[in-house]
Amino acid sequence: MNRKPLTQALIGLTLLSVASHASALSGPKYVFFFLGDGMSASQIQATEAYLTTANGGDAMVAEDLQQPENRLNMSKMSVLGMQTTYDAYALMTDSASSATAFATGVKTQSGTIGMTPDLTQSVKSVAELAHEAGRRVAVLSSVSLNHATPAAYYASVPNRGDYYGIAEQLADSGYEFFGGGGLNKSDQALMDYVAAQGYTVLNDRTSILNLIQDPMDKVVAINPVLPTSSAMPYAIDKPAENLSLAEMTEVGLATLCEGYNRWGRCKSGEPFFMMVEGGKIDWACHANDAMATIGDMRDFDDAVAVALKFQKRHPLQTLIVVTGDHETGGMTVGHATTGYKAYYERLLDQEHSFEHFDMNVWPDHQAKYEDGYDWGQHNNLASNPEMVTFLADEFGLVWDELNTDQQIKLEDAYDKSMVGENNNTADENKLLYGGYNPITVTITHILNEEASIGWTSYSHTGVPVPVFAEGREAIRFAGFYDNTDIAKRLAKAMDLPSLPVYK
Amino acid sequence: MNRKPLTQALIGLTLLSVASHASALSGPKYVFFFLGDGMSASQIQATEAYLTTANGGDAMVAEDLQQPENRLNMSKMSVLGMQTTYDAYALMTDSASSATAFATGVKTQSGTIGMTPDLTQSVKSVAELAHEAGRRVAVLSSVSLNHATPAAYYASVPNRGDYYGIAEQLADSGYEFFGGGGLNKSDQALMDYVAAQGYTVLNDRTSILNLIQDPMDKVVAINPVLPTSSAMPYAIDKPAENLSLAEMTEVGLATLCEGYNRWGRCKSGEPFFMMVEGGKIDWACHANDAMATIGDMRDFDDAVAVALKFQKRHPLQTLIVVTGDHETGGMTVGHATTGYKAYYERLLDQEHSFEHFDMNVWPDHQAKYEDGYDWGQHNNLASNPEMVTFLADEFGLVWDELNTDQQIKLEDAYDKSMVGENNNTADENKLLYGGYNPITVTITHILNEEASIGWTSYSHTGVPVPVFAEGREAIRFAGFYDNTDIAKRLAKAMDLPSLPVYK
Repeated sequence: MNRKPLTQALIGLTLLSVASHASALSGPKYVFFFLGDGMSASQIQATEAYLTTANGGDAMVAEDLQQPENRLNMSKMSVLGMQTTYDAYALMTDSASSATAFATGVKTQSGTIGMTPDLTQSVKSVAELAHEAGRRVAVLSSVSLNHATPAAYYASVPNRGDYYGIAEQLADSGYEFFGGGGLNKSDQALMDYVAAQGYTVLNDRTSILNLIQDPMDKVVAINPVLPTSSAMPYAIDKPAENLSLAEMTEVGLATLCEGYNRWGRCKSGEPFFMMVEGGKIDWACHANDAMATIGDMRDFDDAVAVALKFQKRHPLQTLIVVTGDHETGGMTVGHATTGYKAYYERLLDQEHSFEHFDMNVWPDHQAKYEDGYDWGQHNNLASNPEMVTFLADEFGLVWDELNTDQQIKLEDAYDKSMVGENNNTADENKLLYGGYNPITVTITHILNEEASIGWTSYSHTGVPVPVFAEGREAIRFAGFYDNTDIAKRLAKAMDLPSLPVYK
Repeated sequence: MNRKPLTQALIGLTLLSVASHASALSGPKYVFFFLGDGMSASQIQATEAYLTTANGGDAMVAEDLQQPENRLNMSKMSVLGMQTTYDAYALMTDSASSATAFATGVKTQSGTIGMTPDLTQSVKSVAELAHEAGRRVAVLSSVSLNHATPAAYYASVPNRGDYYGIAEQLADSGYEFFGGGGLNKSDQALMDYVAAQGYTVLNDRTSILNLIQDPMDKVVAINPVLPTSSAMPYAIDKPAENLSLAEMTEVGLATLCEGYNRWGRCKSGEPFFMMVEGGKIDWACHANDAMATIGDMRDFDDAVAVALKFQKRHPLQTLIVVTGDHETGGMTVGHATTGYKAYYERLLDQEHSFEHFDMNVWPDHQAKYEDGYDWGQHNNLASNPEMVTFLADEFGLVWDELNTDQQIKLEDAYDKSMVGENNNTADENKLLYGGYNPITVTITHILNEEASIGWTSYSHTGVPVPVFAEGREAIRFAGFYDNTDIAKRLAKAMDLPSLPVYK
């Protein structure tokens, strides 16, 4: 075997380094940034414990937990980092300020997107800078495309609630692809404006999937079924007409990637930057629903798998970064109910999200109640056969197997949902239910606690979150740093100007 | 400025590498392993938010949170990793099996130390192997020296409860230094055995501190005041007669380090391995007492500072690794009570631990009650001026400022503590109080929640924990891996045989 003399290798390295700084498009040609909204270490470990159980293993056995098929793709990536998530004025950031941090490198106040905390200056995101530098850009999200996290990649607004203004900036961005949820608070005038900026809006599964074979430039691909706030349904409620986040990621990849072919390669592709948000992990965690959380964690991780597959085809040209913006819900991998034991099999019978129950099961039940329907002693959950059946069929909770405390909590919540009051204090009700339907959040609390999953909040929390990276320049994302450093390191990896860059 | 030609630098590197593998004591000469029992990312972030507030800043302001004096030493270290903590048969490991994993490289069952899960084989720890390879060894802990975590560095027993057998193995180890807490369940015969193996047992502050100037070989340095299970008191209750963990670490360093001088350098020191456990972080988290947790986090981090100072003197020869064995308590950095706000100033008035209250304040109060002392309507907390004063003076909780739900919870807990019963169900009492004094754990729950700290368990949880490393070969500890990999990487760094090594 011939070996290059060491000196020659060194000279090669030096030249590579010089070349890398001279070229307009040095660094990784293909860059993916995946953002699990509300995702921290607890969400990751709980999902892996669930996968272990769902795949027939035992979440109490290390050998089972370690099987590759029970691990998420992200946790198998080579490089690990961790980021602090607080914003300019909050230990518990919101998604607008955190997205501003990792998209632009600037910490701002909660609620603000792409502007400094005093609202005097707008800042450019890595996506805007990448686009200016000649990269094609895609922005995907499972919530609406003008929601805070995706918005930080193309918009600057003082208030994240300005959905209309954000959507106009989306249309102005010129990015090659948007996909996932829809445009929240949009109207015909807005859609006309989007079209006037050259975008084709697609919203059926077939035409969107056709883009893989016949890509178009400047597409907004919106899933047809969007039950709330123009967001995709929870992944465990996915209707067949919709694309999963992974499918949408592949569509986005085909759009960005000139000559994308069935082996998952770019033929003579231009460089790109793609941002993909798993936005409903956060929503599920706000509602303290572990199964909805796990469903969207899997959906998000499947999208990461699309990028990893692509990276295998272009190992020296691709960078993938995966992280969360903050933790949501104060989720923990343990509870006083179960102590040192975990029972993830308790979750296997919940096939739909809390939202599905609230939208499709509960309203009819409540309407019957209001119509005076006779279930016997119908103000009482225990003696209401329909509700006892819901508990068993929808969530796998068997009334007679619950302990007295759990039964009392469910009765109280049932009263609160049905008639608006119970015998708790107002403060206790606030802690027990947050802003959610009392009966539903009580059901998921009990079910989650029996599995060994705890929650302490209906809001975001301030724990630092892990970062995973793979591929070229991935090593930049090792270490413990701040969320603004994500943007700065992405900018360096793509050889963009140093952040922040003011508009 | 003269530059070495690149080739010459390369040859130098190659020679260094060859030398490094040829020498019996290659790799870092001085190795520190710090273990925060029960410490994960939440404990770290909560402590930094507290420090920010205690130092006059605002835990809701990023600029304040980022000031170096408000950061723990560990989170400023260069290298970050993360480890999964589950043991052979539990997602929520215990401290015996986790310590076995990161001390020996073998996953075992909960409760077992230094043996395979089938209890057929004993395994050597990195400390034992390092000692055999000629390194001096110190083992320190703020709990008893024969408690599970330190024990894994010198003992192999099927059951961690075999304190006597573990202590005998401590005496047999021949290690140069043990320090911190005492020997749990010991008797005169055991202490005679320890002495017979050549150990000097010191247990007063002056003689222990004297070791810094006049080191002795084979010392067991036991703090004089050990209130429970031969463990040091919580750091926030530290009596003046005791050494802090940092002081004990410096004593250990002077013992290990031939010619240790006042500049913190080894003059002509032999290589060493030092393990330091902050063991009471875990105990405070079991009891869900944030201030006791934060106190021991600071004590532990101060001990890390001793090693970092030493590392500055010997940068090319020193490796420092800091991690936790598992999370305890399901601690979170957020709570439904406070939503997106944090109020760490609420903690500033708690100057002692729950244990101090249980041991020094509550018993007298309860005895008065049992003697029929007349506080007026004395079965009622609200009308008991003494108890209302305790709440204010010991914890900064002002009765009239509490909401109705908090007042009801305290009244119920007071009844339960005083007379053994209240109007809750047995299941509710189990969730509310764990095995702790109902009134005390209710007080810390309310106080912590008002600060924005939540808890979900009185046990360990299964979330992965961060690893920090600094110095020579620190880069080995980057990435996301298993707790057994800590032992394997330490063994590689110290050029010890590949793990596991069976006895």
